[in-house]
Amino acid sequence: MKRLLVIGIGAGDPDHLTLQAVKAIAATDVFFIVDKGEVKHELIQLRLDLIAQHSRNPYRIAEARDPERDRAAPAYTAAVEDWRSRRSLACEALIRDELGDGETGAFLVWGDPAVYDSTLAILDEILRRGHVAFDVEVIPGISSVAALTARHRIGLTQVGRPTHLTTGRRLAEQGPTADDVVVMLDAHSSFIGLDDFHIYWGAYLGTPDEILVSGPVREVGERIRRLREEARARKGWIMDTYLLRRMPPRDR
Amino acid sequence: MKRLLVIGIGAGDPDHLTLQAVKAIAATDVFFIVDKGEVKHELIQLRLDLIAQHSRNPYRIAEARDPERDRAAPAYTAAVEDWRSRRSLACEALIRDELGDGETGAFLVWGDPAVYDSTLAILDEILRRGHVAFDVEVIPGISSVAALTARHRIGLTQVGRPTHLTTGRRLAEQGPTADDVVVMLDAHSSFIGLDDFHIYWGAYLGTPDEILVSGPVREVGERIRRLREEARARKGWIMDTYLLRRMPPRDR
Ligand SMILES: C[S@@+](CC[C@H](N)C(=O)[O-])C[C@H]1O[C@@H](n2cnc3c(N)ncnc32)[C@H](O)[C@@H]1O
Ligand SMILES: C[S@@+](CC[C@H](N)C(=O)[O-])C[C@H]1O[C@@H](n2cnc3c(N)ncnc32)[C@H](O)[C@@H]1O
Repeated sequence: MKRLLVIGIGAGDPDHLTLQAVKAIAATDVFFIVDKGEVKHELIQLRLDLIAQHSRNPYRIAEARDPERDRAAPAYTAAVEDWRSRRSLACEALIRDELGDGETGAFLVWGDPAVYDSTLAILDEILRRGHVAFDVEVIPGISSVAALTARHRIGLTQVGRPTHLTTGRRLAEQGPTADDVVVMLDAHSSFIGLDDFHIYWGAYLGTPDEILVSGPVREVGERIRRLREEARARKGWIMDTYLLRRMPPRDR
Repeated sequence: MKRLLVIGIGAGDPDHLTLQAVKAIAATDVFFIVDKGEVKHELIQLRLDLIAQHSRNPYRIAEARDPERDRAAPAYTAAVEDWRSRRSLACEALIRDELGDGETGAFLVWGDPAVYDSTLAILDEILRRGHVAFDVEVIPGISSVAALTARHRIGLTQVGRPTHLTTGRRLAEQGPTADDVVVMLDAHSSFIGLDDFHIYWGAYLGTPDEILVSGPVREVGERIRRLREEARARKGWIMDTYLLRRMPPRDR
């Protein structure tokens, strides 16, 4: 049998790695590197550095060219699912050809593998097709949400109250659905205009480029929008996330 | 100046500890142990084991008797806030008397300090009173939510869709507010009857007592209710959490 580890590596800081992840890296024979179409060299380099630092045995690296995703498609979910299917075929070939029976392969996943990441769904799809068999083990990681709240020294939740986790696209369509909303994958500063809310924003969390801003949206919203645009222009890409907290709360 | 570290230690597995948390423990002079009224000896012992294993220097342990919380009070939030205030006075005295200037103190917080935990709010309250000053640094941890999804090898989120994090009390009052809902702090198996949902349930995650069950609520709900009651009777306390996922989804 082949064994696959899906290892959460944390959201930017190499010290986000758990002891469980360190042991998992040390036990891996083949690392699969299949990254998003956009070339985020730094993010791949961070993975290679973690591997070099924590491996204890000889290991191999298997890389796949990632299929392009149709970013102009109006139907986001369909576009992601189509891209995911093509990606799963590329991963299937890698697992079949590069990982021997009795060996352990690993995917190093940014943040926590459970949070807006496609690796687990891709492995499920491969298993469902049934052309290659393997066991899967998941090692949880520090998500960018945990990194955000830690850096701002705030709770994700308030006593006895809900927190909603959503995407920028949903926020833009529906507005905030609770007094506490965490937003990821926002390409458009969709917080602008939410003047009842406090925002706790973080970009490139855990990395040397980290930027943190917090305050009432009414006071800091435009500044965050500018910082995002400048940072994206400077580095070529941005990763940011934020918590919106209604002040004062509406719903007790 | 005094420095306080709020260190997430993960949700049960000692290997959930991050490298950052290991370093923070090694840098701590005084560990503050103030645990919930219920005597959960095992949970305190796990902290003492982590300290003994990862400390690199001499350290001290400062313990506070925790005030009783009024669990019969009908107003949950008010009862928690009252208990929190009394707890913050106990912590204030400890920080004032047991931690020297230039020293580093630490609270080891179960899971992630941002998730339904009062430590940060207590420290804010102490700082607001202004009788003792200190810097705070938060080290994120693997929450029981991350542990749950990892053990079930599932996503917390689905592509482009929201996930709501809430309490058992809220779920009982309002029902599921989304297709994907994570429930914590549920004393009453409030999932019973939610027959459109799949449940991914975990108790004592990450510990040798871990129990996992998943399936349609209609098929496994009663079994989980029984398992919870048996486990609680056997050990004297239970920690469990679950993800509800509507099948098929309603909202695309
Ligand atoms: C495809 S999702 C992956 C999330 C990842 N699995 C996690 O647990 O954080 C990418 C989104 O995560 C957020 N993100 C990831 N890393 C981040 C970081 N270091 N700083 C800020 N946001 C980050 C951003 O919202 C980004 O759009
Ligand atoms: C006061 S909250 C603290 C949560 C913690 N800060 C975290 O990040 O998981 C306690 C609740 O967390 C959940 N929980 C904590 N540890 C758990 C574990 N090992 N297994 C299952 N649920 C757990 C349960 O829902 C429990 O009622």
